[in-house]
Amino acid sequence: MRLSKHSTAPALDTGTCAPPVAVILAAGEGSRLEETRNGTPKPALKLLGLSLAERTIATCNTAGIHRFLVVLGHEAAQVRAHYQQIAARRHCDIDCVTAEDWRLGNGASALAAAEKLDGAPFLLTMSDHLVAPSLIERILLARPDQGEISLAVDRDTAGVFDVEDVTKVATSDDRVVGIGKNLEEWNAADTGIFFCTDALFSALRRAHEQGKHSLTDGVRDLAAAGKVNAVDVTGEDWIDVDTPEAYGEAKRRLLASVTKGNDDGFVSLRLNRPLSTRLSARLAATRITPDQITVISFLISVTGAGLLSLGAFATGVAGGLLIQAGSVIDGCDGEVARLKQLSSPRGAWLDTVLDRYADMAVALAITFAFAAAHPGPLAWIVGFLASFGFILASYVTKEFRIRTGQPYPNDILNRLNRRDLRILIICLGAVVGRPFEALAIAGALTHLCVIGILIRGWKRTASPGR
Amino acid sequence: MRLSKHSTAPALDTGTCAPPVAVILAAGEGSRLEETRNGTPKPALKLLGLSLAERTIATCNTAGIHRFLVVLGHEAAQVRAHYQQIAARRHCDIDCVTAEDWRLGNGASALAAAEKLDGAPFLLTMSDHLVAPSLIERILLARPDQGEISLAVDRDTAGVFDVEDVTKVATSDDRVVGIGKNLEEWNAADTGIFFCTDALFSALRRAHEQGKHSLTDGVRDLAAAGKVNAVDVTGEDWIDVDTPEAYGEAKRRLLASVTKGNDDGFVSLRLNRPLSTRLSARLAATRITPDQITVISFLISVTGAGLLSLGAFATGVAGGLLIQAGSVIDGCDGEVARLKQLSSPRGAWLDTVLDRYADMAVALAITFAFAAAHPGPLAWIVGFLASFGFILASYVTKEFRIRTGQPYPNDILNRLNRRDLRILIICLGAVVGRPFEALAIAGALTHLCVIGILIRGWKRTASPGR
Repeated sequence: MRLSKHSTAPALDTGTCAPPVAVILAAGEGSRLEETRNGTPKPALKLLGLSLAERTIATCNTAGIHRFLVVLGHEAAQVRAHYQQIAARRHCDIDCVTAEDWRLGNGASALAAAEKLDGAPFLLTMSDHLVAPSLIERILLARPDQGEISLAVDRDTAGVFDVEDVTKVATSDDRVVGIGKNLEEWNAADTGIFFCTDALFSALRRAHEQGKHSLTDGVRDLAAAGKVNAVDVTGEDWIDVDTPEAYGEAKRRLLASVTKGNDDGFVSLRLNRPLSTRLSARLAATRITPDQITVISFLISVTGAGLLSLGAFATGVAGGLLIQAGSVIDGCDGEVARLKQLSSPRGAWLDTVLDRYADMAVALAITFAFAAAHPGPLAWIVGFLASFGFILASYVTKEFRIRTGQPYPNDILNRLNRRDLRILIICLGAVVGRPFEALAIAGALTHLCVIGILIRGWKRTASPGR
Repeated sequence: MRLSKHSTAPALDTGTCAPPVAVILAAGEGSRLEETRNGTPKPALKLLGLSLAERTIATCNTAGIHRFLVVLGHEAAQVRAHYQQIAARRHCDIDCVTAEDWRLGNGASALAAAEKLDGAPFLLTMSDHLVAPSLIERILLARPDQGEISLAVDRDTAGVFDVEDVTKVATSDDRVVGIGKNLEEWNAADTGIFFCTDALFSALRRAHEQGKHSLTDGVRDLAAAGKVNAVDVTGEDWIDVDTPEAYGEAKRRLLASVTKGNDDGFVSLRLNRPLSTRLSARLAATRITPDQITVISFLISVTGAGLLSLGAFATGVAGGLLIQAGSVIDGCDGEVARLKQLSSPRGAWLDTVLDRYADMAVALAITFAFAAAHPGPLAWIVGFLASFGFILASYVTKEFRIRTGQPYPNDILNRLNRRDLRILIICLGAVVGRPFEALAIAGALTHLCVIGILIRGWKRTASPGR
């Protein structure tokens, strides 16, 4: 059954260069998460706004895989419908197959996939294993030889989350020599991600005939013949969401990962991010899209600017607080996008351009209010230069990136140059009844930073021959 | 003799991956250019501000070659001193060797290089052959086999500049089977660019013993043995600057190439470029650097802004004309840089950032003058919005490039959005005594374009999954 009609993926291609199909085992009951699930089938269980099933699909998408074969079992109809929605939303191909004897074990479930595959190597993963896209990318580099399979293993055994429950692996060089939950001597953990040839099915059938029905039984059969390649993915994030504790841990890791790698300014780091991530965790559970958050943040900032333009103390305080609120919420769009694996260049484009308009509105409003009380050109000239500084601050770092081919580093100049800081300065100024002075200070600060960045760019773009 | 102490090139490396040494024949007298040279040795003859020798070196630099061996002959001391200057200026290694019997022919000159080479393949070119860097890049891909040489040939025989003087080549498949100025049957032209093994020297020695001393004699010897690989570089620009006519043609081609590939706006195309290229041809002959032109253009614009701030009609006209002059000269920095093969990210960085400051100065000056005569906030708000539009116009196209990974296309929005047009609008406004109204029109136009670009960016960054 081909679920999606919007597919942009190429027709089934078994060439070695095309990304493989991913087989996803989604047949199990997930009895240990019964309370957390509260009636929802396990693959459809939401974690920070996105179901486990959709997280697995989105992760594979990021790693370049867009064709899936999902093995259904428990509550097959409901789970199929859920995957159908995901296929439509994420524009990928999701085939389904029902494993009639899924209750026997996940090896029996995996066997059901055999009939739908064409003999080409395939990725094998579980609907409840959350992994980093880079883990998938790493195992994709370890294409198994004919008759073999590759298993992604984590050698940091001390760092494994639920050491009792994890499937243990014993390796010798790059070969798996033992596997099982109760292995006594082990040196790696099974992450649940495989890159397989149909040798797996032969092994599962052999195990099946011996009355053994787990995936591990099949892998053990192949390992005994030295046919399981251990692919080291130590350092990559992965977790088997099998218990309420693992569910909580997955949530914590996701939230922590959302701000990782951000080049935050001082204010973001200490004030805005702690607030926005809390808010994002809640927003992710709603239907609000990241783009909608971008627009809401913009409207809050513009409303704040409107209040600041009135020139009274009380409205100024309200306006200052609103623009700071807008600045905090401005962090949520990207965070929610990352939490829900929805990041897109479009979202970033909208966000960054609306931020510039919001900055202008704030500078214009404050200057207007101050100039009304202080006639003469001085107020306007200061406001003019400040607003110019704000946008130039963003402009020079973009230009730097284009001219040098690298992002401007997150140095002190860049941190002082950020929107989070200038908005907070203006907010504080408004709270003490001095928004215009604060605007002037923020403007002067950005101009100093721009000059610093100019000089740095001048040095960086030095080339022989000039 | 190692001339440069500033070398950043790696130590002599004969590995096959390192770019080869380029041997440059600069021994000849250049008698047919005697009048043009007017006492200057031919390699030092300037063509649009850069000597033939330096153009050859700069072209090789662009193609990745930074080590040279120059064969001297006629006026050896002067030519050596000239190459010494080039080595210092362009930070490359230039060794020299004097061919005692250069008068015999260019084959005798080439032989002088043999003792200085280590047996690795080398590029061979002439100090008076101007070629496109891409031609060099193409022959570098045709590394000759042991015992062979590669010759870059142009199969567009009808397009050859001086068909009387060119060395003709007869090829059969990829082999040169005949070569000479008086060849009757020929199907390609010798561009003067070779990629050689030391088989060339053996061949030159054999020719030498037979009393033949031209490079062509050596090549003919190898061609007879099927050892000359014809590398097709048809479509690449090249010219042998051997006569006053060729010198004039080289100049024309250089000037024409300077504006090629520019995404010019309407005003640039029809007004600014025709003026600036004429000026650039003159500026290239001076010692003024492209960066100095950038700063001069900026200062002219700022002076224009100063005059516009005075608010009188006459000073406004002068200011308007000055900012338009600044806008024209703003094109010269890049043109001179390309003419003198000095283009650098630094120059582009300086230019683009100073342009933004110049725009702000013009908008501020005009608004200041108008607000002085028309109290109240309206003038300031309009000026504020206009100046914001100017910089936002530049900002959005950069942002587009970063978000989509492609430059914003040169569509109608981008052309209406350019500095050349807004400066001309303001200049014309100033000339008719309405600089502020012109500023408002230019500001409104840029905001419309920005909105259009926003929408286009929104569509372009659409991605599945959103």
